[in-house]
Amino acid sequence: MMRRGDQLLLGFLFCLFLSLAFAEGGKIRHYRWEVKYEYKSPDCYKKLVISINGRTPGPTIEAEQNDTVVVELKNSLLTENVAIHWHGIRQIGTPWFDGTEGVTQCPILPGDTFVYKFVVDRPGTYLYHAHYGMPREAGLYGLIRVALPPGVSEPFSYDYDRSIILNDWYHKSTYEQATGLSSIPFGWVGEPQSLLIHGKGSFNCSTPGIQSGLCNATNPECSPYVLTVVPGKTYRLRIASLTALSALSFQIEGHNMTVVETDGHYVEPFVVKNLFIYSGETYSVLITADQDPSRNYWAVTNVVSRNSTTPNGLAIFNYYPNHPKRSPPTVPPAGPVWNDVDSRLAQSLAIRARQGYIHPPPQTSDRVIVMLNTQNRINGHVRWSVNNVSFNLPHTPYLIALKHKLGHVFDQTPPPDGYDFVNYDIFIQQPNVNATFSNSIYRLAFNSTVDIILQNANTMNPNNSETHPWHLHGHDFWVMGHGEGKFDMYSDPQKYNLVDPIMKNTVAVQPYGWTAMRFRADNPGVWAFHCHIESHFYMGMGVVFEEGIDKVGELPTSIMGCGDTRGGTFHKP
Amino acid sequence: MMRRGDQLLLGFLFCLFLSLAFAEGGKIRHYRWEVKYEYKSPDCYKKLVISINGRTPGPTIEAEQNDTVVVELKNSLLTENVAIHWHGIRQIGTPWFDGTEGVTQCPILPGDTFVYKFVVDRPGTYLYHAHYGMPREAGLYGLIRVALPPGVSEPFSYDYDRSIILNDWYHKSTYEQATGLSSIPFGWVGEPQSLLIHGKGSFNCSTPGIQSGLCNATNPECSPYVLTVVPGKTYRLRIASLTALSALSFQIEGHNMTVVETDGHYVEPFVVKNLFIYSGETYSVLITADQDPSRNYWAVTNVVSRNSTTPNGLAIFNYYPNHPKRSPPTVPPAGPVWNDVDSRLAQSLAIRARQGYIHPPPQTSDRVIVMLNTQNRINGHVRWSVNNVSFNLPHTPYLIALKHKLGHVFDQTPPPDGYDFVNYDIFIQQPNVNATFSNSIYRLAFNSTVDIILQNANTMNPNNSETHPWHLHGHDFWVMGHGEGKFDMYSDPQKYNLVDPIMKNTVAVQPYGWTAMRFRADNPGVWAFHCHIESHFYMGMGVVFEEGIDKVGELPTSIMGCGDTRGGTFHKP
Repeated sequence: MMRRGDQLLLGFLFCLFLSLAFAEGGKIRHYRWEVKYEYKSPDCYKKLVISINGRTPGPTIEAEQNDTVVVELKNSLLTENVAIHWHGIRQIGTPWFDGTEGVTQCPILPGDTFVYKFVVDRPGTYLYHAHYGMPREAGLYGLIRVALPPGVSEPFSYDYDRSIILNDWYHKSTYEQATGLSSIPFGWVGEPQSLLIHGKGSFNCSTPGIQSGLCNATNPECSPYVLTVVPGKTYRLRIASLTALSALSFQIEGHNMTVVETDGHYVEPFVVKNLFIYSGETYSVLITADQDPSRNYWAVTNVVSRNSTTPNGLAIFNYYPNHPKRSPPTVPPAGPVWNDVDSRLAQSLAIRARQGYIHPPPQTSDRVIVMLNTQNRINGHVRWSVNNVSFNLPHTPYLIALKHKLGHVFDQTPPPDGYDFVNYDIFIQQPNVNATFSNSIYRLAFNSTVDIILQNANTMNPNNSETHPWHLHGHDFWVMGHGEGKFDMYSDPQKYNLVDPIMKNTVAVQPYGWTAMRFRADNPGVWAFHCHIESHFYMGMGVVFEEGIDKVGELPTSIMGCGDTRGGTFHKP
Repeated sequence: MMRRGDQLLLGFLFCLFLSLAFAEGGKIRHYRWEVKYEYKSPDCYKKLVISINGRTPGPTIEAEQNDTVVVELKNSLLTENVAIHWHGIRQIGTPWFDGTEGVTQCPILPGDTFVYKFVVDRPGTYLYHAHYGMPREAGLYGLIRVALPPGVSEPFSYDYDRSIILNDWYHKSTYEQATGLSSIPFGWVGEPQSLLIHGKGSFNCSTPGIQSGLCNATNPECSPYVLTVVPGKTYRLRIASLTALSALSFQIEGHNMTVVETDGHYVEPFVVKNLFIYSGETYSVLITADQDPSRNYWAVTNVVSRNSTTPNGLAIFNYYPNHPKRSPPTVPPAGPVWNDVDSRLAQSLAIRARQGYIHPPPQTSDRVIVMLNTQNRINGHVRWSVNNVSFNLPHTPYLIALKHKLGHVFDQTPPPDGYDFVNYDIFIQQPNVNATFSNSIYRLAFNSTVDIILQNANTMNPNNSETHPWHLHGHDFWVMGHGEGKFDMYSDPQKYNLVDPIMKNTVAVQPYGWTAMRFRADNPGVWAFHCHIESHFYMGMGVVFEEGIDKVGELPTSIMGCGDTRGGTFHKP
């Protein structure tokens, strides 16, 4: 028989266990990462990359729903700061760990170790990447895979789970690129030199004008990525894109793909030959290895929506037991033509929430913000703007400024909720002479429902409109509709999908088109919403939302240290 | 007759004037600088440089003795921090504005404006440059010229005052260089691609393997620097070196130079055909335009002390009214051979304080620190060490750590005051297997007199010893002696120059040689002392001195914000 003391102890330990389990909501997944420069040749061309623990892409974070992920990030760069965004993780209750420099935190200084700690509350496929300046392009990115808890299963079946990240790759440093973008005259970054499939690409080392000794086609670092499959088995392939510029198509020669998940939400399955994927998006597709098993097949990614000079990216879809490096006997499929907007729009429209997993959207919204996306010239600089406001970041992060009422650190005038949609012609070059720089933000009523209409338009070049994948931090939104031409405020909302809209965190707006999204402003914090093309955000294509700042808990001091929070005190103006 | 009120007012204003004059000790020289990236072609090869107000070298600071220099430095880099050191300015009473990241301040973050404010208490020629990581090499450097007050004249006469900075120039970025230096296997930075005379050099654009489109020999940015002189006139030419690696010789074809000043101290004049100058040194020489005025002459700088592949740097010494771009009719003089150590040592020994301007040195010292300079391998890394300790910086600057008694942020064990000088053979490769990394520092008794003996030795390569210019922050030191071979603790001090040693802030130690220096530890603060070769300091060739920390005034909060002073609080361990 148990003694009373033992019983008390056991009871205490049980309570402790329950409290811990409740407090943390799952297991702790602890990562220690060191960020530093290394020379790598991901596409055979040797250049400086930013690696995590020596790798680019960085390690994949593997967790289960409701686990707590802890990343101790040591910045071992020489003189550069860093911050990492956990793309798709809503950071409920931890808005300070969203990793968005200038919005939710100060940058992490060289030599410093910053601890990110957040709960991954939903299963699915997510991303992480640098969110300070443009160093995502230098290789600082990776995947987050959140599994269902034991005993819960997906509404689709597969034998194996695999993942790849697609990326485009520049040989110039991010500094060189950014300097060109902010110069007068403007220096455009140009098309990427190659496309990477899970960190491996193949630049043509015989390209004229390449500095000798830097490119080596036989470097094993740039041997094609190999996805090995067992004949007859079905694979869940998680496909993510973190391109700097390019919209992509991805396909596997001779194999159909069934789309089943995007951005952490189940999709009503549909079959595609090629998947269009935009920067910041993730998809899960099911692929069955049901073709002739005596050979390998090409996996191909190609640029769409830009008339790009970037060669297609290739990987090998390897049927076991063929040699993984054996080239397929065929010419790689070319992929869809770059300017076929209709096919891309058709895929966007095909993505709907899976039956049985629908989160019904609010049937009405409390506020509608129409965001005209334009390219402008401001004080001689080429910029992107939303309603003629070109965004720039303040030096004191918004989250700290708003929580500590440092109103002077950013422009308090709200940006406009719309544009002159009656008179503005989206199909012609517009001078937009009244465009301005601003760091003003949208303040949303807590728990209100907000509609955002992203309206695309002509750029500063004739007969040109581009594709913009917009990413929202801290939320998923319902994709209410996509359309071509100018959004009609009166008739188009009638066509919204109020039944089974997919929820996403990133969505594309097509050339001369519009995309409508709805979300609940129910996550106390300050959240960026921006085009996920690295150079577009750098050139001002973004906004910031605040909601429920009074409900945000005490901020950790670790996020401070810049602007008005530098040097131990809050400086008043 | 004056009313009493007016008298009072006048008296008050006069007192105010006196107080201001006393408080500031001269005029205020106010500078507003913006540091940012730009594309420039200083040697015809286009690369990213760091500019100040669009220029590299940056603007020359012009002041008079006892003026207060105020530099509002705005960091407009994208993600990189910065700090600027005022090289040769002792910062008496303002040790926190020495600009040495990790020693006297935290780095300045992008978007931040940092205000440096210090008194230039002595006339002479000084420098400024980045002192964080290695970005001095990217172009962030310039001159400080401090004139005598009106009515006071130099002990030599001249008609015009001119200045130039010499530099060596790499085409790789500082990140690429630093990554190589800290990699296993080690990647050496190599010899610079060109030598710059006041920011202008001439790389051979026909060099094989150069990426096309980056090099343009006709770019006006790389037209040779022109120094125009009026026949018969005498010029004071201030010559400074901020090379990353190279020791230099500088000469003007057919013209002698009379050395009259170095590092802000008058030199007993001596005549040279060519001037040897090491990184971190400044000289004033007098040159009379007394040659055939119908033609121009070459000014030439060439690398010494390394068997370098870097071509000589050329400028035009232009006799007015010849066209400034007219090439001299002669082949540029070749300059001295690289391995003539004797000539260089002879110049060092020729430099003595000018009669009438001698600061007599203390005849004895309270402490002698012998510093053996070696190259080592530590944990697979190639490093430089002092007495087998390879220096690295802590993340909380020493000045803040010592003043606020944060003893845990760096190693409290003092580094060794000497080495085994009886048994250590400086002429052979030594394994130095017990070498370590450390951030420990030398703590000096306040107002004590300290002797430093810099002892050179063989590197890790056979029959190789290099030249190291050592720079002391916060002080001038007396150069007590130079010698070849191993310093003899018993006999060599007998040969010290106790009569008229020059005072300097930077001095070279020659291959397999030694240099003895003496200084008074009379400037409360924390001061770096290091090899001024950028890559050598980065690889650990430096130490830090503390003196009179209890006499240091209240630290400005602007220098804080990193390590233990990040985010608003001092973190205790």
